[in-house]
Amino acid sequence: MSTAGIILIGDEILSGKVRDENALFLVGELRGLGVHLRKIVVIPDVLDEISTTVASCAAAFDHVFTSGGVGPTHDDLTMEGVARAFGAKVIRHPELEALLRGYYGERLQERNLRMADVPDGAHFVQGDATPGWPVVAMRNVYILPGVPELFRRKFQSIKEQFRDGPFHLRQVFTTSEEGHIAHELDRIVAAYAAVQVGSYPTFSSPDYKVKVTIEGKDAEAVRAACDDLVRALGQSVLRVE
Amino acid sequence: MSTAGIILIGDEILSGKVRDENALFLVGELRGLGVHLRKIVVIPDVLDEISTTVASCAAAFDHVFTSGGVGPTHDDLTMEGVARAFGAKVIRHPELEALLRGYYGERLQERNLRMADVPDGAHFVQGDATPGWPVVAMRNVYILPGVPELFRRKFQSIKEQFRDGPFHLRQVFTTSEEGHIAHELDRIVAAYAAVQVGSYPTFSSPDYKVKVTIEGKDAEAVRAACDDLVRALGQSVLRVE
Repeated sequence: MSTAGIILIGDEILSGKVRDENALFLVGELRGLGVHLRKIVVIPDVLDEISTTVASCAAAFDHVFTSGGVGPTHDDLTMEGVARAFGAKVIRHPELEALLRGYYGERLQERNLRMADVPDGAHFVQGDATPGWPVVAMRNVYILPGVPELFRRKFQSIKEQFRDGPFHLRQVFTTSEEGHIAHELDRIVAAYAAVQVGSYPTFSSPDYKVKVTIEGKDAEAVRAACDDLVRALGQSVLRVE
Repeated sequence: MSTAGIILIGDEILSGKVRDENALFLVGELRGLGVHLRKIVVIPDVLDEISTTVASCAAAFDHVFTSGGVGPTHDDLTMEGVARAFGAKVIRHPELEALLRGYYGERLQERNLRMADVPDGAHFVQGDATPGWPVVAMRNVYILPGVPELFRRKFQSIKEQFRDGPFHLRQVFTTSEEGHIAHELDRIVAAYAAVQVGSYPTFSSPDYKVKVTIEGKDAEAVRAACDDLVRALGQSVLRVE
């Protein structure tokens, strides 16, 4: 099962100027792809924090996706941060420089060329859907722009390479309180190592008290664990979805 | 200036079953209180990840707020994780046990008493607005429930103790592209150490190309930096808010 981490880089989310759309989008996409998202981190435009966060996530997860900090201004530090995370320098990439010169033409400012600066050793990931500007990746770190429309388009252009086996999910709705079913959940967790069991009480639902989720990549194990739990909870089970 | 970190604990956000409301709420609240939010982390219900994340955030920031993982079931590991972060044990607190016994009466299950388990050395924070169950804190870590309604109510009951001087913000909307104004932004950043400068290009606004934000706790410095930038950008400035 492949794992992933998301790093959102930008003061604007932490200060409440902008509401995150990119992590929210990626949570759904990764789920659909069968990738196990293990962490989301939101950090400010601070070089040290970018490099240490990228380094730890790149070591811990199969895939890491960064959002933001890739423009030409002083607060765009992602390329430098990712480079430092791997002990690399930032270099000006001739292929990206040519793309920028073609795009801006006479309007080109020297500062625009900062967008051709990438970590030394970076590779390009070019999806079929978006000819032109590639996604820049350093090892297992995919560097995406913060602008939601661009973030979504770029991720969708490269997403198929991350596809893994699907998740299987069953949800059991019960009228029992968590304290009453906790020992049965413990038993299920111990007996079915291949499934993850979640317990979510509600205080606003008109009918059920707790929703138990059972999920995993092994459809047969999910089915068996769910059937076992439903038998054990008996008449307190309202429905299974 | 006081700083803060938010830790959301729960598989349900990472798997997309639940959309975060608590960090979003707290971003706005902390901003209003004048507290500088420096990090948001979303992690799964895994003991080691909770303890290492809490330890690093507690050392880095003045205040840390956790959300989730405080019920009676197998996936409720926050108290144990916070305890481990400080090298403490978990103890059953007599005052909380008495509250639980009073609340549940004859319906009490042994497992419900897990909600009286707190890190050894924890203290209670009791806001005026919610008599009854206190907010449990360990050093500078405030342990809040994941259910959004409870999270909001509990935070609001204790929030005034975190109030700091307000943030001052000016926003400059310009028709210039980022590459054209980057050198002026560099100059402002260098000249006004007390302000933070953000640069946010838009690709969908009908009138402006970049919104520059200038903010800080020193109202006079924010005003001076803003006036300086507006003079430098000249006619490309559409408006200042």
